[in-house]
Amino acid sequence: MKRSTYQKMVDAALAMYERAHIVLSPEEKSRIEVVDFGLDIVEKMGLQLLTYVNTERVCAKEMVLLPYQTCAEHKHVPTNGKEGKEETFRCRYGKVYLYVSGEGDASSIQAKMPESEVSVFHEIVLNPGEQYTIMPETWHWFQGGPEGAVISEFSTRSTDETDQFTDKRLVREPKIEEDM
Amino acid sequence: MKRSTYQKMVDAALAMYERAHIVLSPEEKSRIEVVDFGLDIVEKMGLQLLTYVNTERVCAKEMVLLPYQTCAEHKHVPTNGKEGKEETFRCRYGKVYLYVSGEGDASSIQAKMPESEVSVFHEIVLNPGEQYTIMPETWHWFQGGPEGAVISEFSTRSTDETDQFTDKRLVREPKIEEDM
Repeated sequence: MKRSTYQKMVDAALAMYERAHIVLSPEEKSRIEVVDFGLDIVEKMGLQLLTYVNTERVCAKEMVLLPYQTCAEHKHVPTNGKEGKEETFRCRYGKVYLYVSGEGDASSIQAKMPESEVSVFHEIVLNPGEQYTIMPETWHWFQGGPEGAVISEFSTRSTDETDQFTDKRLVREPKIEEDM
Repeated sequence: MKRSTYQKMVDAALAMYERAHIVLSPEEKSRIEVVDFGLDIVEKMGLQLLTYVNTERVCAKEMVLLPYQTCAEHKHVPTNGKEGKEETFRCRYGKVYLYVSGEGDASSIQAKMPESEVSVFHEIVLNPGEQYTIMPETWHWFQGGPEGAVISEFSTRSTDETDQFTDKRLVREPKIEEDM
């Protein structure tokens, strides 16, 4: 994404943190991450986040989704001999639509799509003060509601570099290009 | 502590969460913990907290300290074959005075108190948006500032039952007595 797009998303995220009354230090404000999965349609498919802490054992982040912005389907796999990342999403502001794979009545979908590897997702709606824990190796994706969302994430060590995406073309590490 | 004292502290904690714009569900509001260490002077020595999640690997809590209320000196030791609890305190509202044991120039104190086991503490002041990570088996205690504090805690599994207190008379589990 272009430097100007990156800065626009950072500014939008900072406004959301403020609306959610989340206080950040100047240093933290200067290192907001913007993820566009290499697609360059970040307002549709992407997210913004700040990592508060990420040690060998514990990670905490504050994520921002703009209205209807979507984080792409992925899962957290074992890394460096440890179980995959376990994470709890807690909605602080706005609304989150969270989709988590699991057992369910997939028969009708599978009947229509016999050749696909169909994942069946449960929709979980999180309003402020509501949370959900996603265990390791569970496929999931999520989307902000009409006013977006601010989401606290409490987890084991974050190892974004080993995240697996359903769409193998996606990349986690953003590339920022200077504007011409 | 008496049921009426417990309820008074819960109400005070709920007011602090509201001031910090922390949204809690009705179920969460009904299970705020009040810790008085068995001393029954909870406004001086105690804390209030809500555990958002506590799995095998991850714990997150939202703690409240009233003005100048103090959480007693303790440390987190290995439990069930796992390293002791590691925790990051992030101040969300008010101010926290955190005291963490560590290397330091203890000579003057030790000279005066040759027979004591003197711990040397570093004072760390946390304002909103500031945080500090306390590694396992580190003695620590903390106190709210003039307006108290709301503190997010991000940690490994919480095992309060094995916490060690410097003052061995203290107990972590509160006892609530019905008012006469």
